[in-house]
Amino acid sequence: MAALDNNNNLPQVLILKLPPAFALFGDQFFSSEKFQFLKAYESDLPLHQFLTTHAQSVQAILSSGAAVVTADILRLVPSVRLVVATHIGLDNIDLAECCRRGIAVTNAGNVGSEDVADTAVGLLIDVLRKISSADGFVRQGLWPLKGDYPLAFKVSGKRIGIVGLGKIGSGIAKRLEQFSCIISYNSRNKNPSVPYIFYSDLCELAANSDALIICCALTAQTHHLINKQVLSSLGKEGVVVNISRGSVIDEQELVRCLMEGEIRGAGLDVFANEPDVPEELFGLDNVVLSPHSATFTVESFKDLQQLVVGNLDAYFSNKPLLSVVALD
Amino acid sequence: MAALDNNNNLPQVLILKLPPAFALFGDQFFSSEKFQFLKAYESDLPLHQFLTTHAQSVQAILSSGAAVVTADILRLVPSVRLVVATHIGLDNIDLAECCRRGIAVTNAGNVGSEDVADTAVGLLIDVLRKISSADGFVRQGLWPLKGDYPLAFKVSGKRIGIVGLGKIGSGIAKRLEQFSCIISYNSRNKNPSVPYIFYSDLCELAANSDALIICCALTAQTHHLINKQVLSSLGKEGVVVNISRGSVIDEQELVRCLMEGEIRGAGLDVFANEPDVPEELFGLDNVVLSPHSATFTVESFKDLQQLVVGNLDAYFSNKPLLSVVALD
Repeated sequence: MAALDNNNNLPQVLILKLPPAFALFGDQFFSSEKFQFLKAYESDLPLHQFLTTHAQSVQAILSSGAAVVTADILRLVPSVRLVVATHIGLDNIDLAECCRRGIAVTNAGNVGSEDVADTAVGLLIDVLRKISSADGFVRQGLWPLKGDYPLAFKVSGKRIGIVGLGKIGSGIAKRLEQFSCIISYNSRNKNPSVPYIFYSDLCELAANSDALIICCALTAQTHHLINKQVLSSLGKEGVVVNISRGSVIDEQELVRCLMEGEIRGAGLDVFANEPDVPEELFGLDNVVLSPHSATFTVESFKDLQQLVVGNLDAYFSNKPLLSVVALD
Repeated sequence: MAALDNNNNLPQVLILKLPPAFALFGDQFFSSEKFQFLKAYESDLPLHQFLTTHAQSVQAILSSGAAVVTADILRLVPSVRLVVATHIGLDNIDLAECCRRGIAVTNAGNVGSEDVADTAVGLLIDVLRKISSADGFVRQGLWPLKGDYPLAFKVSGKRIGIVGLGKIGSGIAKRLEQFSCIISYNSRNKNPSVPYIFYSDLCELAANSDALIICCALTAQTHHLINKQVLSSLGKEGVVVNISRGSVIDEQELVRCLMEGEIRGAGLDVFANEPDVPEELFGLDNVVLSPHSATFTVESFKDLQQLVVGNLDAYFSNKPLLSVVALD
């Protein structure tokens, strides 16, 4: 009972949806002695009513990628002064509203960014070299029956176009330089400190690339950035790797291009309506489909645990936050 | 008829087994005006009789990886002065006998070595990050039903043990340095010009590695080099990537370790009895199985065409060979 009483006095951190880390490791994963969780997803109440009930006691929100944090939600819990995200790309959070309300936001910082770069390179090699599809061929016992697997395409020396040369895009570029790849990029501004070729026009980047790797954040400006025109510029011998957000690509158009051979292939970790993946892709052997797991490693989840609990502990101890996101 | 007469006067190049390039692109793939092919695999005669019949006219042998070139075969075609291999690792050719008979041997030289290094990195990322198995999960429509895929393991920062630091091993090391991996190696001799940690003892290398990447040639000395003791030193958290030859590993022991969780996983492009793959591996999700296709890219097959035909043309024009193998 003492423990329970103590808990009841702890500040409350709202969780809207079950975080992947809880599903994998249990509710203790982000626990601390400095706060307690208030789990909206365990309540039978409609969300609006649940939030109204706890309006005054909630001081922070823990948000995983799947849980949207809208202006409406923030309006219902006016005592919130902190949103701690467990991920990198914060398109699920209304950052402008956070800014307006003076709410601090933290993200996963550097945690997982190496994993995302690793995944991008893995998906690129996999789709060009047909690793997953050949694995299926061997497992079905077809090698002795059908002979050699059809030729794949070389990775080394390919012209790589990186869309969004931030921390992750730069990490991908650094890795692929050692594959003798020629790196070009498109981003809001040219970065004079990198040796890569800058294209201000995305279609021009695509036309001069064998593979486009999408690494930019999803914003109103980047929604459907990779459209029919860009895919057409990339052309029949080009592949797309997406480790940012599904909606940066016009997914319907991408599916059509893949089915009709208008591009060569795709390695996709993200989709427009996760966990739903366009079923037309399931039968294609020129795609590699990954369940938004680019940061899903044991090692990074341990780092994430420290960072998320560290941010919350810091907040409730009036210490500096560990991975604040600049809101402009 | 004129063309046929001409052909009949051309020197003969023996082919024992259908090369993958012919299966994929047709018999014209390695053709030239300077020689003609004599295809043992198209004859109904037993090989011994076939070779005896053509003993005096055969001047060279074209050998793909699957066709063994034994001392017995060489004895039956004593006019042969050149063996042109279409691949890199020549364990299928009796090199000592070639040396004794003064037969020159050429291999694929640098063609395909970048591809093999790319494949090794691809298999490493794939097995650690569970890319192929997660692709199967998505394609089966399990993501919406089962939720997040189990966590994988990080690639960046891993301790990589390279077995055989030749051209391919060095290419793998160079690539993985940019993943912040710590590179160690074992080879016949320490190479003072590389910055990597040398272990003269293979078990010690394994014990200090998160992943062993096997890149050495198959010889009498390297047969079953990766045995129970080495796998046990690698341990439960270690993975094996093999892009050399299946028999460098004690395959039965590897299969047992994979099934019983004594190592974490494996990415295998090669097997002891290709195209047969141990069926116990088909149901495991901690392995990635590749049908000995590390050099199978459109780009490298084009390069190979030039090199193979170039070697044969050079030989029949008394010009220097392009990719001679040193026989000692």
